[in-house]
Amino acid sequence: MQNIALLTDLYQLTMMNGYAETGTADKIAVFDLFYRDPFGDTPFAVTAGLHQAIEYIRDLRFTDCDIEYLKSLNLFGDKFFKRIKDFKFTGDIYAVREGEMVFPYEPILTVRAPIFQAQLLETALLNIINHQTLIATKAFRITKEAGKPVAEFGLRRAQGADAGVYGARASIIGGCVSTSNVFAGKKFGVRVTGTVAHSWIMSFETELEAFRSYANINPSNCLLLVDTYDTLKSGVPNAITVFNEIKAKGHTPIGIRLDSGDLAYLSKRARVMLDEAGFKDAKIFVSGDIDEHIIVSLKNQGAKIDAYGIGTKLITSAPNPALGGVFKLAGIYENGELVPKMKISDTPGKTTNPGFKTLFRIYENGRAEADLIALRGEKFDCEKPLTIFHPVETWKKKTFTNYKIEELSVKIFENGNLVYTPPLLHETVSYSAVSRGKFEGEYTRLLNPHIYKVDLSQNLFDLKHKILNG
Amino acid sequence: MQNIALLTDLYQLTMMNGYAETGTADKIAVFDLFYRDPFGDTPFAVTAGLHQAIEYIRDLRFTDCDIEYLKSLNLFGDKFFKRIKDFKFTGDIYAVREGEMVFPYEPILTVRAPIFQAQLLETALLNIINHQTLIATKAFRITKEAGKPVAEFGLRRAQGADAGVYGARASIIGGCVSTSNVFAGKKFGVRVTGTVAHSWIMSFETELEAFRSYANINPSNCLLLVDTYDTLKSGVPNAITVFNEIKAKGHTPIGIRLDSGDLAYLSKRARVMLDEAGFKDAKIFVSGDIDEHIIVSLKNQGAKIDAYGIGTKLITSAPNPALGGVFKLAGIYENGELVPKMKISDTPGKTTNPGFKTLFRIYENGRAEADLIALRGEKFDCEKPLTIFHPVETWKKKTFTNYKIEELSVKIFENGNLVYTPPLLHETVSYSAVSRGKFEGEYTRLLNPHIYKVDLSQNLFDLKHKILNG
Repeated sequence: MQNIALLTDLYQLTMMNGYAETGTADKIAVFDLFYRDPFGDTPFAVTAGLHQAIEYIRDLRFTDCDIEYLKSLNLFGDKFFKRIKDFKFTGDIYAVREGEMVFPYEPILTVRAPIFQAQLLETALLNIINHQTLIATKAFRITKEAGKPVAEFGLRRAQGADAGVYGARASIIGGCVSTSNVFAGKKFGVRVTGTVAHSWIMSFETELEAFRSYANINPSNCLLLVDTYDTLKSGVPNAITVFNEIKAKGHTPIGIRLDSGDLAYLSKRARVMLDEAGFKDAKIFVSGDIDEHIIVSLKNQGAKIDAYGIGTKLITSAPNPALGGVFKLAGIYENGELVPKMKISDTPGKTTNPGFKTLFRIYENGRAEADLIALRGEKFDCEKPLTIFHPVETWKKKTFTNYKIEELSVKIFENGNLVYTPPLLHETVSYSAVSRGKFEGEYTRLLNPHIYKVDLSQNLFDLKHKILNG
Repeated sequence: MQNIALLTDLYQLTMMNGYAETGTADKIAVFDLFYRDPFGDTPFAVTAGLHQAIEYIRDLRFTDCDIEYLKSLNLFGDKFFKRIKDFKFTGDIYAVREGEMVFPYEPILTVRAPIFQAQLLETALLNIINHQTLIATKAFRITKEAGKPVAEFGLRRAQGADAGVYGARASIIGGCVSTSNVFAGKKFGVRVTGTVAHSWIMSFETELEAFRSYANINPSNCLLLVDTYDTLKSGVPNAITVFNEIKAKGHTPIGIRLDSGDLAYLSKRARVMLDEAGFKDAKIFVSGDIDEHIIVSLKNQGAKIDAYGIGTKLITSAPNPALGGVFKLAGIYENGELVPKMKISDTPGKTTNPGFKTLFRIYENGRAEADLIALRGEKFDCEKPLTIFHPVETWKKKTFTNYKIEELSVKIFENGNLVYTPPLLHETVSYSAVSRGKFEGEYTRLLNPHIYKVDLSQNLFDLKHKILNG
């Protein structure tokens, strides 16, 4: 999907037409992209998608064919088409780096641009960042519980080709070590893994013949799928037979894969059988409808698992298949002055934060302790104590004395020019692991995680309450 | 994503390499694509994706760049690369038409081709058909309960661009009347809808000004979003003010949109307000985290809703974001004779069906009464009574005397040539509505649906049990 200027909701275009007609198209607006609702039972997210968002904005053009289609809708006026014809993004974009841990209400990406342009970006930016952040977060949840290598196996159940390809990339950012997706392997230079499926085994007269044939062709990559007929009576014994044969030829077998049945029971029994046969180093790889909760259960049962292959539940983030990211107007410049804007809700916690903002993270002894949403340009001096307070229950305070504070938001586009060099994927993978590693495990556990503080700076709090109080 | 030969799992390629090495690559195999598990609480699915599957197979080639990448993996031999270089699909494909209602274990698509080729197709075919069938089915569930026009609004929450675009198409097949997705509108020629978001309202000093401005620009497309500040105190009264203004100029307002709050309560109150103001024909459009279950609840509460906009839950099929379609070996030709293959499971119902199969549907008085999975080539004579029986509880029988029987599976590719003319999308939409309409509502209700009979022909049953009994 090369040219995706039209990858937007129609109402963005009717609004753009409206801004053009009312002469407000060039007003500079500030929009924040953030999410409000926790991801199922945990509040954090691992951001992903910035790389594709950058490519989208950089390449954004309307083709003649796009314009012809839009004219056919009979919804837009000449002023709109005049602007669309030579459309180019000319604004500023700030964002947290890919792989960063973030929390509800934190600006993941901020656009400051003529409202005509900013409005167009909304849908595609949300599509890209919601999806990839969702999958990176799911991958983190899964790989954290696994504590063993996890391969992403979900392409066949992904919601279309892009979901498989960018989902594989996001899975790697979130902690997976490899993918089965060859397209993603080529496109992103990530490790691809996989050996055989049941159809290979079934295409031979016997399981033993299928194993032997595979081992002869791939003696140094011998991972055998043992559950086609009967795992313990046939699969594992046949695998041991073939392992002995390739061992006699000087090769070391990799191990076995279990893809069905009671993985706790089967893995423990298979481990004993492999050990007794002298294959203590042969790995047991499991796959088949696994998610982070099943991993916890398998570990609690003492399952003997060395690596996981996870498909459906990872690539679709079942049963939470959407991150509810939104893109909200935070201000409009009038005569050079920012007029802050906010959506006021009956619930104080659901009211958006006004103004042109940024995000800080506070560390003590290298550990993330709290985040602070602040107005852009605010400075914090580590030499002085910093007191933060809960944004609703304001009497809940915490003072830091020996701390570090880091601005997480970086400038990506300035006046339409890309001023940020996106890291290579393996750099993003490392960055994300380090970012996640700064959080105590209590913040990221699946059940009743400890609540990580996300507060507002005094200036932002004051601005918000000035508007709320009229 | 133009060239997607590599959109496959690595193990397909390692198996293909194995077939090439063992000299079995040209053996003709039969694979069936089907799903086993019901969709959440209902068994049926509305198929979609055949159109894209055809394009994928028709255009399938490995580029020099693909081959270079595959060589870099050091996993494959010369025989593999020789076959990959001029790869072209040369087999046969049969499938049910897009939009058809299908049930677990029914072959949605059957491939008969050299095993080297068939194995490659597996992942991409599953990716395409699982995804689009999932969304078409969800759209049918939603639109059936709604009984009013439903617009697809989910692009921003879709799992990537393809999920948004092909999801929009599948939604239309499943019963939606329009999409907000402009890209999909252009690509597939479907109706696009949408007016304004909260940012339009917030970009003006007052809501009234925002409404008035929009109405002036779009007097004949005046649908106003009324929930930005206070739906009943501000939104609806301001909308009525503007409706009166445009009415005075000779225009008819379309209506209002509610996007938050208690939609049952607000729609009833807004209806009264609009009626009292003389706008009995103004429509009430609702959106905001709706699914089929919420629709049932809204209707039970007597909500006054004329149309729905449904995003997240439709485009991701939350909370069931994957259809578990599989692609299973059903036979391999040896010396011109088909040797049937099946995966045997401990549960009789989970055992696959062997052989080269097709699918029939039996009608009485135009109503679908049962499906019959049969061996390809079997004929049924409507002049004679037909007795079918449950595939496991075989004593459960039903005899048809006055019936019609239709083969649902059609030939798509023959010897690698496309022999099927895919219908235009609007034809598929009509076909699907007719197919779905042949089922009594009891079969498609959300709660405890009546079980639709899917039986095996006597010949297929006999073949299966011959293998099962050794």
